[in-house]
Amino acid sequence: MAHEAPWRTEPDFALAQSLFDTFQTIGFDGRGITRASYGEGEERAHNHVRSVAADLGLEVRTDWAMNLYVTLPGRDRSLPAVMTGSHLDSVPVGGNFDGAAGVVAGLSVLSGWVREGATPSRDVTLMAIRAEESAWFPVSYIGSKAAFGLLDAAALQARRTDTRRTLAEHIAEAGGNAEAFKKPGLDPKHIDCFVELHIEQGPTLIGKNAQVGIVTGICGSSRYRHAEVHGVWAHSGATPRAYRHDAVIGAARLVERLHREWLEIEADGGEMTLTFGVFQTDPTQADFSTIAGKVGLSIDVRSRFLELLSKMNARILDIVQQIAMDNDVEIKLGPHTGSTPAQMDDTILKDLMTLAKNSEISAIAMPSGAGHDSAIFANQGVPTAMLFVRNQNGSHNPDEAMDFADFKAGSRLLSQILANRSA
Amino acid sequence: MAHEAPWRTEPDFALAQSLFDTFQTIGFDGRGITRASYGEGEERAHNHVRSVAADLGLEVRTDWAMNLYVTLPGRDRSLPAVMTGSHLDSVPVGGNFDGAAGVVAGLSVLSGWVREGATPSRDVTLMAIRAEESAWFPVSYIGSKAAFGLLDAAALQARRTDTRRTLAEHIAEAGGNAEAFKKPGLDPKHIDCFVELHIEQGPTLIGKNAQVGIVTGICGSSRYRHAEVHGVWAHSGATPRAYRHDAVIGAARLVERLHREWLEIEADGGEMTLTFGVFQTDPTQADFSTIAGKVGLSIDVRSRFLELLSKMNARILDIVQQIAMDNDVEIKLGPHTGSTPAQMDDTILKDLMTLAKNSEISAIAMPSGAGHDSAIFANQGVPTAMLFVRNQNGSHNPDEAMDFADFKAGSRLLSQILANRSA
Repeated sequence: MAHEAPWRTEPDFALAQSLFDTFQTIGFDGRGITRASYGEGEERAHNHVRSVAADLGLEVRTDWAMNLYVTLPGRDRSLPAVMTGSHLDSVPVGGNFDGAAGVVAGLSVLSGWVREGATPSRDVTLMAIRAEESAWFPVSYIGSKAAFGLLDAAALQARRTDTRRTLAEHIAEAGGNAEAFKKPGLDPKHIDCFVELHIEQGPTLIGKNAQVGIVTGICGSSRYRHAEVHGVWAHSGATPRAYRHDAVIGAARLVERLHREWLEIEADGGEMTLTFGVFQTDPTQADFSTIAGKVGLSIDVRSRFLELLSKMNARILDIVQQIAMDNDVEIKLGPHTGSTPAQMDDTILKDLMTLAKNSEISAIAMPSGAGHDSAIFANQGVPTAMLFVRNQNGSHNPDEAMDFADFKAGSRLLSQILANRSA
Repeated sequence: MAHEAPWRTEPDFALAQSLFDTFQTIGFDGRGITRASYGEGEERAHNHVRSVAADLGLEVRTDWAMNLYVTLPGRDRSLPAVMTGSHLDSVPVGGNFDGAAGVVAGLSVLSGWVREGATPSRDVTLMAIRAEESAWFPVSYIGSKAAFGLLDAAALQARRTDTRRTLAEHIAEAGGNAEAFKKPGLDPKHIDCFVELHIEQGPTLIGKNAQVGIVTGICGSSRYRHAEVHGVWAHSGATPRAYRHDAVIGAARLVERLHREWLEIEADGGEMTLTFGVFQTDPTQADFSTIAGKVGLSIDVRSRFLELLSKMNARILDIVQQIAMDNDVEIKLGPHTGSTPAQMDDTILKDLMTLAKNSEISAIAMPSGAGHDSAIFANQGVPTAMLFVRNQNGSHNPDEAMDFADFKAGSRLLSQILANRSA
């Protein structure tokens, strides 16, 4: 156990505070934090971490996609490394903690150990991952995919939403080399484990009054981003019900029916979310006195269980047919996209639970509904874990609010599990 | 009965065809017909009717709002006049028949009588009404209200949606005098009846395979044009169901529940329509991965029974409370607006049914879901009737399609009922 490791110590929380303060000034846009993937803010944040790490005497390297690796060398450098890390980009007008907290925690742990003069049994590496937020490029998990050689040639031609320049151009500008995209910066066989600390992006920890969440799995998704219900535009007064093809009625009944399906799945113990974030009559044609001929809507299903995603998708296909027939409308679901769920490592999860209990940190096990780079590590076969730190007001907005006391609790757990794995 | 009147004759269908042809060139916008209320197209249409009427030797006058009255003088000019008429403006990119058909029919009837040398027992007056389409000014039934002295001072300050100039300015430009707005151009006591011919704006006559509809009543309305459902924007993956305030779910369930209410009312024989023409998440904030914090929607209830409008509104208020509570959202219905239903005259309705049967014209009784100037006449106590002529593709669009044979059938009925009332 961690508390038996001779070189065990507190993370360097003074450094943590100083890093948060610096990051707050990098990419501040007047309202929140905007650090675009491969943009100036992300670049400056990476440079700052690299410079602090070098000052601490840690090893520093980058891969072709300019992911940054900061390593405290172990006694036996041939052993698989213990890893931690997260990302340093943000959504537009986001907050200072989403992503950055995990890098700050990792560097504070390493700094604590360096000050203690500790040498782990194997390499311990902090990875500052590039381009995690899919707000900037229509590609998910760019940095972690790149690190494992999983990014394909097409992704490199994707254009950033603001600059309209390609990912390859942005990587080159940051000093990387997109032509080496098949060359992995990481090999799963050489990684003992990956543990990511991240703020929680929802209200569960606040609701359950817990400081830390220990993630059981990262949800995959099954999505129809651009579904359409087609009816016939007609005069609201002059068209009796029997002659109507009302797209709003079709869409509302579809939403209501699928929502009931979710309630039933939950009642049976199924763990899933279902969201219709977009539901729109055409603003240029819709009018209070006109029956709507078209509604656009999105369907987002998430679960950490692949079987449940498949089951729900089958129900969607059935129910869509039924609703279309019953309501005299046509429903086009459009392209079906999604991602694969990732299971967190059961051994590390149990160890974290024990460590939390011993340290009197209030922790609960919970799934991650949002996606994270950890999903890539887990699906590459790396034993992976995530620690969520309690946070108010959600993420992806300037009002993210993480208590420093909660960050300390999460960082202590991170330090202990990394020490355990590298003792 | 009409067929006993000595001066009874066919309407002048050659004139009708010529009038439709001319109107097709007045306000043609490249795609459809655009004759704005008090705009150039309406003005030219009124001038054309005035000129044709003068050529026929008919009396012509206008009121302060520039409604046009074309009269075939009767033997006893002190008797209440028999009236017909409709409007000559159109919606933007509308069709050539909505409104104009009623004026064309009336002038064709009078022309037929003039050619026959017939003199009715009392005045028969065709009214070309101004500004019926509420697309141009946020005021309904401007022309017919003006004629009865029902337009208020505030309405005269309403601005046209395209020119942003006031109704008073537009009336003055057309040669009228808005300062005389309290002066009625018509007195209900001096009107025997008003019969308006209009194309049907829905698919009922086509569905029932009838040429003509004899209107039983004109629906009133009860509306919430700008209702809002408020929830809380949140991450779709990271927010479990128990923590959600999902505006789309609230709104969809409201729509589904109210729609069921309609089905029940219909099953009980209640005659009503219910339309949610607008249902919109905010396009600038809504996203497939975000729980919607706000939905805007419209609720349009129509019925020719005031009790049913009131009953449905009470149900709306109840159900809104229930849905808000059950779904943890806030529902703001916003301003409640509406109009009063109008009952058509039962005697004229029965006479029209008999005339149709005798003339072997296929006719059905039906309500008008859309509003018409006839509602103003009826609610002023004038015995009022409407004839709908079968029409494909609805109205308020360039694809209105009325068979001339159906127009002839409707015009013959109009001629016969006007002859009956003025024999």
